[in-house]
Amino acid sequence: MGSVGDFEFPQSNALLNIAGRASNDNPLDPEEFRRQGHMVIDFIADYYKNIEKYPVLSQVEPGYLKKRLPTSAPFYPESIETILGDVQDHIVPGITHWQSPNYFAYFPSSGSIAGFLGEMLATGFNVVGFNWMSSPAATELESIVMDWLGQMLRLPKSFLFSGNGGGVLQGTTCEAILCTLVAARDRTLRIIGNDNIGKLVVYCSDQTHCAFKKAAQIAGINPNNFRVIPTTLSTSFSMCPKALRNTITADVEAGLVPIFLLATVGTTSTTAVDPLGPLCDVAKDYGMWVHVDAAYAGSICICPEFRHFIDGVEGADSFSFNAHKWFFTTLDCCCLWVKDPSALTQSLSTDPEYLKNKATESKQVVDYKDWQLALSRRFRSLKLWLVLRSYGVEKLRGFLRSHVKMAKVFQGFVEADNRFEVVVPRNFANVCFRISPSAVMNKSSNGVLGEITNSNDISSPRTKITKMGLVNEVNQKLMESINGSGGIYMTHSVVGGIYLLRFAVGATLTQESHVIEAWNVVKQHAHAILNSIPTTQ
Amino acid sequence: MGSVGDFEFPQSNALLNIAGRASNDNPLDPEEFRRQGHMVIDFIADYYKNIEKYPVLSQVEPGYLKKRLPTSAPFYPESIETILGDVQDHIVPGITHWQSPNYFAYFPSSGSIAGFLGEMLATGFNVVGFNWMSSPAATELESIVMDWLGQMLRLPKSFLFSGNGGGVLQGTTCEAILCTLVAARDRTLRIIGNDNIGKLVVYCSDQTHCAFKKAAQIAGINPNNFRVIPTTLSTSFSMCPKALRNTITADVEAGLVPIFLLATVGTTSTTAVDPLGPLCDVAKDYGMWVHVDAAYAGSICICPEFRHFIDGVEGADSFSFNAHKWFFTTLDCCCLWVKDPSALTQSLSTDPEYLKNKATESKQVVDYKDWQLALSRRFRSLKLWLVLRSYGVEKLRGFLRSHVKMAKVFQGFVEADNRFEVVVPRNFANVCFRISPSAVMNKSSNGVLGEITNSNDISSPRTKITKMGLVNEVNQKLMESINGSGGIYMTHSVVGGIYLLRFAVGATLTQESHVIEAWNVVKQHAHAILNSIPTTQ
Repeated sequence: MGSVGDFEFPQSNALLNIAGRASNDNPLDPEEFRRQGHMVIDFIADYYKNIEKYPVLSQVEPGYLKKRLPTSAPFYPESIETILGDVQDHIVPGITHWQSPNYFAYFPSSGSIAGFLGEMLATGFNVVGFNWMSSPAATELESIVMDWLGQMLRLPKSFLFSGNGGGVLQGTTCEAILCTLVAARDRTLRIIGNDNIGKLVVYCSDQTHCAFKKAAQIAGINPNNFRVIPTTLSTSFSMCPKALRNTITADVEAGLVPIFLLATVGTTSTTAVDPLGPLCDVAKDYGMWVHVDAAYAGSICICPEFRHFIDGVEGADSFSFNAHKWFFTTLDCCCLWVKDPSALTQSLSTDPEYLKNKATESKQVVDYKDWQLALSRRFRSLKLWLVLRSYGVEKLRGFLRSHVKMAKVFQGFVEADNRFEVVVPRNFANVCFRISPSAVMNKSSNGVLGEITNSNDISSPRTKITKMGLVNEVNQKLMESINGSGGIYMTHSVVGGIYLLRFAVGATLTQESHVIEAWNVVKQHAHAILNSIPTTQ
Repeated sequence: MGSVGDFEFPQSNALLNIAGRASNDNPLDPEEFRRQGHMVIDFIADYYKNIEKYPVLSQVEPGYLKKRLPTSAPFYPESIETILGDVQDHIVPGITHWQSPNYFAYFPSSGSIAGFLGEMLATGFNVVGFNWMSSPAATELESIVMDWLGQMLRLPKSFLFSGNGGGVLQGTTCEAILCTLVAARDRTLRIIGNDNIGKLVVYCSDQTHCAFKKAAQIAGINPNNFRVIPTTLSTSFSMCPKALRNTITADVEAGLVPIFLLATVGTTSTTAVDPLGPLCDVAKDYGMWVHVDAAYAGSICICPEFRHFIDGVEGADSFSFNAHKWFFTTLDCCCLWVKDPSALTQSLSTDPEYLKNKATESKQVVDYKDWQLALSRRFRSLKLWLVLRSYGVEKLRGFLRSHVKMAKVFQGFVEADNRFEVVVPRNFANVCFRISPSAVMNKSSNGVLGEITNSNDISSPRTKITKMGLVNEVNQKLMESINGSGGIYMTHSVVGGIYLLRFAVGATLTQESHVIEAWNVVKQHAHAILNSIPTTQ
């Protein structure tokens, strides 16, 4: 896994450097840009070529980099050769390689050539597209590709510009949620008055992403008015509309004002899918805003056979997914559509003198600064446009289906091995599995895990709890053992008390051979861990 | 200014394409990445080489792009050659060229080779650095460079990690303000209870960036409790500590709770500087949080002779500036330092099961997700690190000083021409000027502007107002005339009723020859406009 010392630059480039630098000292000199740009392209291409040599999960210790870098910035310039050498020697070891084909953690951060090139172009133009006039192409391309993508997802026309809704690119789902929540909050406060902010209540499930709780906190929703509907294994951890209605009813009876429901298509722990139609029906009865967070799973709804997962979205007010997760755009690129853009702009508009211009006054243009938290914004639509055009709808569907197919292969391995079990049904390209309780208990029938546990309470009332704890502990050991090896990287979750391993396929470079090898790694580590349990019968 | 048709690709690359694409279809294939990456580097290098050919301010009409692009995404892939051809033909005309050496609008969006390369590396690695473990290098490099930069600015040690404060890279100042405001809000609410959110009051001046009003709106501060201290020309539009104290006193007497002051070093309209020391003294008496927004001017405080502009920062709680404005990192990169990181993390932390890890539990690491609004974050510190190393402290100071020097040259031109006047003293590299009232009135002594105005009320009580309106109208015409020509681009503001033109030097490619030529453009257009005023005496 050594990475030091195997990085070299062509000598010819190094010679060019000296000549080039002497001729023009401007930090944006086109020829020097060309020379250094080519070097970094080669650096990154080589990185991808060699990426399997590195441990997927960085194995450095906290504070490693401080020991390697100076304590202050250099006074004099350093060459790009020196800097890239340091990137290779000191930065790469501290990277967890999200682009590795052996990366199966969290959700993917799917890069692509097209996404990368789009980001390069955006960075090269380096425009600050806060309003239409500051760079009309940045605004107009965004509106166009958001309609393209909305059509691909078969979103109701009311979400598209062509149907008086509209789409906007945000950085992350966190921002999308906060923007829509603030819009919903103010929609209600305009009616009941700002003094009643303390009465507003928001709703989600215990599987909703933590981003929502943070957004509610930021937006000044009273923490006591943040409602979490419990979910269970029996419904695969999806939100129960009836439980939602009961909670809302109680709140209304208590004089509170329900304003916002966050429904999820593809939860972070298990990719559970909340039933959008019935949930929207409940919310509608109380005039609430419904946001659908499909951060991970939204992408694959461009495939007709997966589109049903967002059935019912027509009842929602807004919908978002992260193109940087599983749609090849590189971080960051969250696609948000709203039915009523004026709800956003009423909360988020600014109109200082120094930004006044005739295009805005004509009301013929979109000023995206009023659709998001920040003023400044990058030209993100370029990368989405390049992804859509470079691959086309057909290939994009093919890429996503190939990830699902690989996840199915992995699922097949798990199901065929009686030491393992799939914990919840697989919806997309993420398999939630664990070493099964029976495999653990066969080894340790009295609930004692020998060397690898401190638990030794086998008295009757706590046996069940202890057993669950044992099984979880074994699975946690499995995950840590696998990730510590560096060969593959997975992450975990705990749902309904069950510790599970998540095998999320979606890294762009992953092929079936990687999945097969990953399963071998899982088996080897599981074998060692199960064998370390002393048989106590 | 034609841009269509002068963009060609080497034929050899086009041939390689067909071979390359057939061999490997993976969207992150290293060799195809290399081939296409080199093409885009050349595209951008050529763009910089030819950038002066384009009108700086895009001259397209609203809706131009919709007429040129298809109504839906392509079903089949398109080649990078086709796409880049379309970028040249359809996107470039809709771009306002922030990187042009003839760009003097708003504030600069200063690109550089090093900043670009850092963004490329970050996009290439494409890690999602929400916590330490997700890529230790991303977190540790950020902490290190923020301490480097803090030292360069001679920030008090209490703002640095080495002094138990710390720095974090946000996307924009808007985010930095919102984060610190929420921290301040919650610090108070933890004492007085969430039910009292309606009593909280925040303070700024009439020159404060609109981002603050938006942040207060998002954070749920009652709009009635947003205090704006008026400024005047007599103090160059800086905030008056006495007026602040009087306002706060009145609020406290009314039972309200002051929590936050936003002070600015380098306001957007005129680069005014609020007196940090005296303002912090006032705020301290009321236990308020003070954030210093030096979005534009912070950069140049790395030069000893400019450091005095942030004297008094030691009394503040947080300080931020945008490295993407005038520090060569490309958008987006806002540097924020806080004295008490725990105030941020108490408001912004999340701790879901799926992100739990031993490094976090050890409390030996920073998890930057808890220092910002969003969970996901890009590896922004790479570009800041590359800028600091590629240029070094000495050259960076030199670049910034050269911009100030060019602004002084322009100021000299304005002052030497009695048709013009400098409106407020120049602090940095932005000159606020206009055609002087006397030059207008010499042409139109009775306040009638002939063909170029509709105003014809010359009755006595309104003469002064009318004259002011006339002068403003002439200057607005001047700006629109200049920008419509495409030769250079400037923007305006209105302060104390005065319409002024802003000449902001800072685009990386700008040289003194561009400033000289810009002045010629200004003179020509002013000459034409002044001559179009019929002499009525």
